Amino acid sequence: MKFITKLIKSLEESGSPLCVGLDSRLDKLPTNLLNGGSIVEQIFCFNKAVINATSDLCCAYKMNLAFYAAFGTEGLEALRKTTYFLKEKHPTLPIFADCKRSEMGESVKMVKQEIFEFLGFDCVMVTPWFGVDTVANYLDDERHGVMVYVHDSNPSATEFQDLIIQDPQAPARTLPLYAYVAERISKYWNTNGNVAVEAGLTYPKALSTIRKIVGEDMPILVAGLGPQGGNPNSLNGLFGKGKSRLFVNVSRAIIFPENPSSDYFTAVRLSAENIKALLTQAKAD
Amino acid sequence: MKFITKLIKSLEESGSPLCVGLDSRLDKLPTNLLNGGSIVEQIFCFNKAVINATSDLCCAYKMNLAFYAAFGTEGLEALRKTTYFLKEKHPTLPIFADCKRSEMGESVKMVKQEIFEFLGFDCVMVTPWFGVDTVANYLDDERHGVMVYVHDSNPSATEFQDLIIQDPQAPARTLPLYAYVAERISKYWNTNGNVAVEAGLTYPKALSTIRKIVGEDMPILVAGLGPQGGNPNSLNGLFGKGKSRLFVNVSRAIIFPENPSSDYFTAVRLSAENIKALLTQAKAD
Repeated sequence: MKFITKLIKSLEESGSPLCVGLDSRLDKLPTNLLNGGSIVEQIFCFNKAVINATSDLCCAYKMNLAFYAAFGTEGLEALRKTTYFLKEKHPTLPIFADCKRSEMGESVKMVKQEIFEFLGFDCVMVTPWFGVDTVANYLDDERHGVMVYVHDSNPSATEFQDLIIQDPQAPARTLPLYAYVAERISKYWNTNGNVAVEAGLTYPKALSTIRKIVGEDMPILVAGLGPQGGNPNSLNGLFGKGKSRLFVNVSRAIIFPENPSSDYFTAVRLSAENIKALLTQAKAD
Repeated sequence: MKFITKLIKSLEESGSPLCVGLDSRLDKLPTNLLNGGSIVEQIFCFNKAVINATSDLCCAYKMNLAFYAAFGTEGLEALRKTTYFLKEKHPTLPIFADCKRSEMGESVKMVKQEIFEFLGFDCVMVTPWFGVDTVANYLDDERHGVMVYVHDSNPSATEFQDLIIQDPQAPARTLPLYAYVAERISKYWNTNGNVAVEAGLTYPKALSTIRKIVGEDMPILVAGLGPQGGNPNSLNGLFGKGKSRLFVNVSRAIIFPENPSSDYFTAVRLSAENIKALLTQAKAD
């Protein structure tokens, strides 16, 4: 199945705009609940429990690879076991590799082998810094996607992304760099339907501009809800076609709930339910 | 020892501006020479032979992690064995992680664990896309460096990096985005002396502008010599203080020589010698 079909089907059929971020760093896990075992088993056991508690509440999972790679080959093996568990048990839910692997040419073949084959992801996430060469070698494979960080949620995202640039085709026309990036992606990069974009909820004006530029069809993954300060009301009107072309990643607030009651993974589920409800409300408004 | 001290000492004492790129992808290795063994052993054996053939000809090594991660945990184990071999046998030569790990905040701690501790590198390479947050968490550790891709060597590097932007502090002043990035790094990011920059030889004007902006002290790593079309003559006058603040990465042309004569690693050495001679000539001119 095409990546974009899988993603849109999941957005439509799950009815949930929630993407659960499995940034399961070993040193923060409630290891007392994980029955010991190797590093691989501890991380995988935690992830399985989170997935079991959330899979019917979300449309996708995203993992930041840094949180696994920090723990060496065992961390990566735990990640691989997690993606293959997801593929087997929840084959309709796409899995995003938040990895900033912005390679080009020959090295993209290597990233495909790492991210899609070895680690089993559906979609790789890249920065646009090096231009279209970064996505070109992904366009021949519709079964996998490539998602571009257009405007991130962190404080210094504005340092370059918000700079006012001159359109090289019409120098009198000026626009913010992130908007120009969104234009290039939408008009020239996404020639085979498998490119999507990421933007931060902490910059609602940029997010809204990006939706206007990429149109109603293209899925947008949104970061920055919750601890980073994003307000779900800023999502009103930005969900795109059929209100199912936008989804929101939440990681820490779900996998490390603030007040884990008697049962940790019940608290995980409750947290996911609450966030899903907030997002569903924003969609309905 | 501080990272920057190690790098500058190596540039000065080796007298060589050559950085050897160990992009040792398994499927291109001359496996007939490697005495079989596991994937880890084959890659590590190849790298050891390349290092033995080149360590007295270069000032540093760089590895693109994609070429190892593509082969799963065994590829990464081979990478780790290589960096620790280098640290033991050639402790004066800094090792660069060409990995585009552009993380922020908490996830930078994870990258430090992955790149500096587990994989044993001296310096991580990041894109500037997310702003200063990407380097902020590296500044407290002078033993390690962070290198920013300011202007890359690939064809589409110009798509965003060459855009004309308005300086937000003085909107009437316009300059190319890459030049603004170099300014920010030089004036505001490099507060602890462990930040350096990377630029492509395929854009000699940009490279020369970057040298002017960052000054004579900051080391520049140059990519794009050889197969990518960069001309060593473009390096004249850009070597910085004591002609020892610029070094050039060459990977394929050294580790996969075009005409490996009777002895593969003799051809590797010959290729490194030829490139070192070209660079030394460019430095002398």
